[in-house]
Amino acid sequence: MTDPFEIIETRERVFADNEAAARTTRERMRENGTYFINVMGSPGAGKTSVLLNLFPKLMPQYRIGVMEADVDSDVDAKTVADAGAKVIQLHTGGLCHMDADMTMRGLDALGLQDLDLVFLENIGNLVCPAEFDTGADLKLLIFSVPEGDDKPLKYPLMFETVDLILVNKIDTAPVFDFDMERFKENVATRNKKAAVFSVSAKEGQGFEAPVRFLAERISGRTEDRA
Amino acid sequence: MTDPFEIIETRERVFADNEAAARTTRERMRENGTYFINVMGSPGAGKTSVLLNLFPKLMPQYRIGVMEADVDSDVDAKTVADAGAKVIQLHTGGLCHMDADMTMRGLDALGLQDLDLVFLENIGNLVCPAEFDTGADLKLLIFSVPEGDDKPLKYPLMFETVDLILVNKIDTAPVFDFDMERFKENVATRNKKAAVFSVSAKEGQGFEAPVRFLAERISGRTEDRA
Repeated sequence: MTDPFEIIETRERVFADNEAAARTTRERMRENGTYFINVMGSPGAGKTSVLLNLFPKLMPQYRIGVMEADVDSDVDAKTVADAGAKVIQLHTGGLCHMDADMTMRGLDALGLQDLDLVFLENIGNLVCPAEFDTGADLKLLIFSVPEGDDKPLKYPLMFETVDLILVNKIDTAPVFDFDMERFKENVATRNKKAAVFSVSAKEGQGFEAPVRFLAERISGRTEDRA
Repeated sequence: MTDPFEIIETRERVFADNEAAARTTRERMRENGTYFINVMGSPGAGKTSVLLNLFPKLMPQYRIGVMEADVDSDVDAKTVADAGAKVIQLHTGGLCHMDADMTMRGLDALGLQDLDLVFLENIGNLVCPAEFDTGADLKLLIFSVPEGDDKPLKYPLMFETVDLILVNKIDTAPVFDFDMERFKENVATRNKKAAVFSVSAKEGQGFEAPVRFLAERISGRTEDRA
């Protein structure tokens, strides 16, 4: 803290090592024919509930594995295992994000041989996970209506970095004066390429479009390899 | 990343330096007769809206200063300045929390001479801010109903470390199946001393009890000094 130069150096080294590890993971997933999605979002945005809605629509086509990253607890891993996915629980030991090295060790523990599609449910946090490339092919942000339509302005890196945004709890939009058009405008100030869909995990609504989006991305990569 | 021992060392040095800086801030605030509150919570929990409800009830008794910490943007600082508090905006430059050294520089910029009560509105994040003592006299968590009553199990350090929890958006409890008793039980597994009150910033409800709680804490410290 007293020597900002040293802190910056540490950060740079950490990020350089992280990029190398992420590249290795990405190559390995490609060789194995496994598509890898890093799922991020605030605490309580509904990451697990959204995944539970996506799984029944994806499972007929893909064999699914999930890495549940938590600071502590295994609440989500139990729920996801009950849904029929292959699951492992990762504890970060207080850390606020998953980095590429931790992810690599998670993938080793999960085992990739029988999996077409792997999800990493990252720590609930809109800041730090955005800084670390985990080696995923796609970055999925689960956002939720109660967080407010101004958040792309306040958490720039997360919104700059994601490929797909699912706005969950859309059934509560009237309660929270959430304006979807304003939200999309705010996203566009950070990122013109991210696809945005609204869903309600509670009511099981809106999942057809994002499932089609994911299927296209996955088959696009498969064609790259052919 | 490749050498865990080095990372741990860096973290330990950072935390030791941080504790020393936090102690200095705490002594300085005591000498100056200023009470200092570190306000934490998830993105969109309603930190700013809750402060805007507390200010009119606190301002007759205390001269209030606010440090608005953001990764980027100055949305909240403008709102808070309009409410009549002395405000400065702090940008963390991508960092996910405020540490004691950054806080100290913020307090210097704010100026303490005419202030009885200072709030730091920390970065929206349930993980990292809990790790760093800023030198505050009281840690206030603004939690919100849509985040879910299970979160004390998933973000242990935050719930272990706070003195006061305001559960905001309580008007939406029926929409989200939020069980206040279960939430309090989950808090108690982490922290038996934290006071918990429910409020609605949108409807301006429930602020009398937490204002009384804060006034007692502030006058308790004033008596310590006498």
